Amino acid sequence: MSLTDSAAADVAESASLASRRLATLSNPARNEALTALHLALDRNRDTILAANARDVEAATRAAESGNLNHSVLKRLDLSRPGKYDDMLEGILSVRDLADPVGKVTLRTLLDDGLTLERVSCPIGVLLIIFEARPEVIANIAALAIKSGNAAILKGGKESMESFVAIANVVSQALSGSQVPEGSIQLVKTRDAVSSLLAQDSLIDLVIPRGSNDLVRFVKDNTKIPVLGHADGLCSAYVHSDASVDTAVKVVVDSKTDYPAACNSLESLLVHQDVLESVFPAIAKALLDKGVSLRCDEASRSALTRTLPEGQAAHVQAAVDSDYNTEFLDLVLAVKTVPSTNPPSSAVEAAVAHINAHSSKHTDIILTESKEAADLFMNGIDSAGVFWNASTRFADGMRFGFGTEVGISTNKIHSRGPVGLEGLTIYKYLIRGNGHRAGDYHDGDGGRKYTHTSLPISQ
Amino acid sequence: MSLTDSAAADVAESASLASRRLATLSNPARNEALTALHLALDRNRDTILAANARDVEAATRAAESGNLNHSVLKRLDLSRPGKYDDMLEGILSVRDLADPVGKVTLRTLLDDGLTLERVSCPIGVLLIIFEARPEVIANIAALAIKSGNAAILKGGKESMESFVAIANVVSQALSGSQVPEGSIQLVKTRDAVSSLLAQDSLIDLVIPRGSNDLVRFVKDNTKIPVLGHADGLCSAYVHSDASVDTAVKVVVDSKTDYPAACNSLESLLVHQDVLESVFPAIAKALLDKGVSLRCDEASRSALTRTLPEGQAAHVQAAVDSDYNTEFLDLVLAVKTVPSTNPPSSAVEAAVAHINAHSSKHTDIILTESKEAADLFMNGIDSAGVFWNASTRFADGMRFGFGTEVGISTNKIHSRGPVGLEGLTIYKYLIRGNGHRAGDYHDGDGGRKYTHTSLPISQ
Repeated sequence: MSLTDSAAADVAESASLASRRLATLSNPARNEALTALHLALDRNRDTILAANARDVEAATRAAESGNLNHSVLKRLDLSRPGKYDDMLEGILSVRDLADPVGKVTLRTLLDDGLTLERVSCPIGVLLIIFEARPEVIANIAALAIKSGNAAILKGGKESMESFVAIANVVSQALSGSQVPEGSIQLVKTRDAVSSLLAQDSLIDLVIPRGSNDLVRFVKDNTKIPVLGHADGLCSAYVHSDASVDTAVKVVVDSKTDYPAACNSLESLLVHQDVLESVFPAIAKALLDKGVSLRCDEASRSALTRTLPEGQAAHVQAAVDSDYNTEFLDLVLAVKTVPSTNPPSSAVEAAVAHINAHSSKHTDIILTESKEAADLFMNGIDSAGVFWNASTRFADGMRFGFGTEVGISTNKIHSRGPVGLEGLTIYKYLIRGNGHRAGDYHDGDGGRKYTHTSLPISQ
Repeated sequence: MSLTDSAAADVAESASLASRRLATLSNPARNEALTALHLALDRNRDTILAANARDVEAATRAAESGNLNHSVLKRLDLSRPGKYDDMLEGILSVRDLADPVGKVTLRTLLDDGLTLERVSCPIGVLLIIFEARPEVIANIAALAIKSGNAAILKGGKESMESFVAIANVVSQALSGSQVPEGSIQLVKTRDAVSSLLAQDSLIDLVIPRGSNDLVRFVKDNTKIPVLGHADGLCSAYVHSDASVDTAVKVVVDSKTDYPAACNSLESLLVHQDVLESVFPAIAKALLDKGVSLRCDEASRSALTRTLPEGQAAHVQAAVDSDYNTEFLDLVLAVKTVPSTNPPSSAVEAAVAHINAHSSKHTDIILTESKEAADLFMNGIDSAGVFWNASTRFADGMRFGFGTEVGISTNKIHSRGPVGLEGLTIYKYLIRGNGHRAGDYHDGDGGRKYTHTSLPISQ
């Protein structure tokens, strides 16, 4: 399908219409569609894997000639052990989650016979733009159907064969269900993106799944709200009373568990008082794992004094831009926080540095003091603020959300790992019996609102 | 203050810094600032009213020479009976509302000694752009301080003298409180708006308070999320089994209680079966109140047959654009919904028309059937969907929210009347004891997440 602006409008228009009917489907009807989707993807495994193998072959050639990043190749390959089964399993776990639609979150008696309810409902039409990972199609289709949202999916060129194969299976599976046609639409051509991003009157939310560049491009080119994060610049602050053991464990895990992830550590702030005690232990453990350290003068000279000469030689001087860099690699920027009196001022200085440099994703403090931890957790303006725990816990599965649409660094709607709940909004329902607002005006001998909270469950 | 882009950046930057400290203030400290604000505005009543009188005088001249709408004049005048006292009273009611910050909405035990909490927190920096109403300054300053958000307020030229006078009192009152300097900033010049709207990295939410044109201008000229509605095109559907008495009461109130309000009725859909029974009673009551009806052919000819000739003469033929028009006046568009078998299909037709034409603000159904009401309330994609109750109930005070920032027709974050809760977001806090994500990986003999829900109140 080649998309002009008017074709993009058609796609968005039919998704919008479908979304209205999809929003009224019962949870069992939505679940049945997911069961059918699971079955169809299981039955068509060979066809889909054959198509995926053609994508992988083309990508391998591109990678060999230097035209494609090897990490893309890895993300593309659906035949890696467990990957296809995980994709199938994911559909069933989404199906088995609690229904996010129709939850009453407020119930108020406004007056005799006049009740107000706030009820969760789907947002409407989602646009998902992704790059290499073909399993995102199944994943997002499941999330959209479960939450009653229509979805337009736009894949990248590397995964085109897989995309077409999966798209056919998805369409066929859903055509036998109550999910209305047009609810899940798959758009293939490259030039479609800007036409789709222009449909702000019909598309309610864009979710880019891919590189920081993709997210930034989407954010810069649409009026539709975007759910996601362009950067994951996470920081850790080691306070003057940090436990050596805890600090070493948490910092090493944050930096090295999966350095390419958005929730891995990029900046380390160290209190001046522990530059020659806790910090060398952390530095040694990181250097042993192959991490390069980019240190300010105080932290670097502390390492020169405390580490064996051979190791200290691997420590580089930091430049200012290191504190604004998401390395996504085994590199860590280190900065010293000067001693202060009272000691709480050092926490405030760390908070100020992090608020100015972090991407509001996840930041952590290492301290044995509840007071310092509270000050830090209260002051940091990020989606996640952790005390003596790894930045790597910032994840929907780890949070117990069952699945995750993405991690948001937005300041409105949804923040941090976003599960099904982030794909819903609410509406206000009033049930009356001929009630007029005019009867409640002041001074007209009018009626009074009772505004009594009613129990949420009827 | 004349605002260049760099000056706008300075305003936004200092607001952002202030917001971080404001976010950590206790509820009592925020409440004390509101008490001080109330006292100062009470003490300086004469000065402020004198300044306001100068605005009103200038506006009266402008209105007399045809350069200003009379409704602006009315909105501008702070000396109207009760208005100043209402403004003062509003500050105290906001103060006395429950603290919207620090509410725990999720608590999960991830593993032994590892707990996750979701806690409400301020959004950050709000930009409020308003036109004539000078009391908005006090209102919004109170809401911002109570919710821990910094606010940049930009007033219109008609209220300039009032604005300066109130701004001085606000600044002085807050300077004696713990609210940090820069938390509430007031910007006066006209050309500042586009410079401020460009500060999307520092300002988190824009709230335009004024005409539809203002809201549309703001939405079209910023990447910052906008909370508000450009249009309030509300509809009512009279089903085949509607009670005459209920329908007349509710439709007349919806249309005539305050026709210039965004929650007043603009379109009426009538089931074909009641064109000569319920509808003429509604039409007569509306015509008696001076409402002009713009009817499609079926509804018009029904009135010709049933109403006295003199009254029927006031009924005009509708044109297509009437069903997309927010009249904000004593005008109502009327459309017939054909009879269907089953009758539920007529409800679906009404829902489809409304979803295609309404502005997703508030729509209502008049019916005695719970089944029809449920179908309608489920299918309509609007912030408010009411059954046998007036559209005019769509209002934060009436909903029992104590106060209202505005009414949102957005599909994300906040929808419908927005109270203090709409000015908050949340963050995720994890408290651990040296926990590493790497210990939980599959197949490493790893630990398992418990994901046990904990009680919200500790």
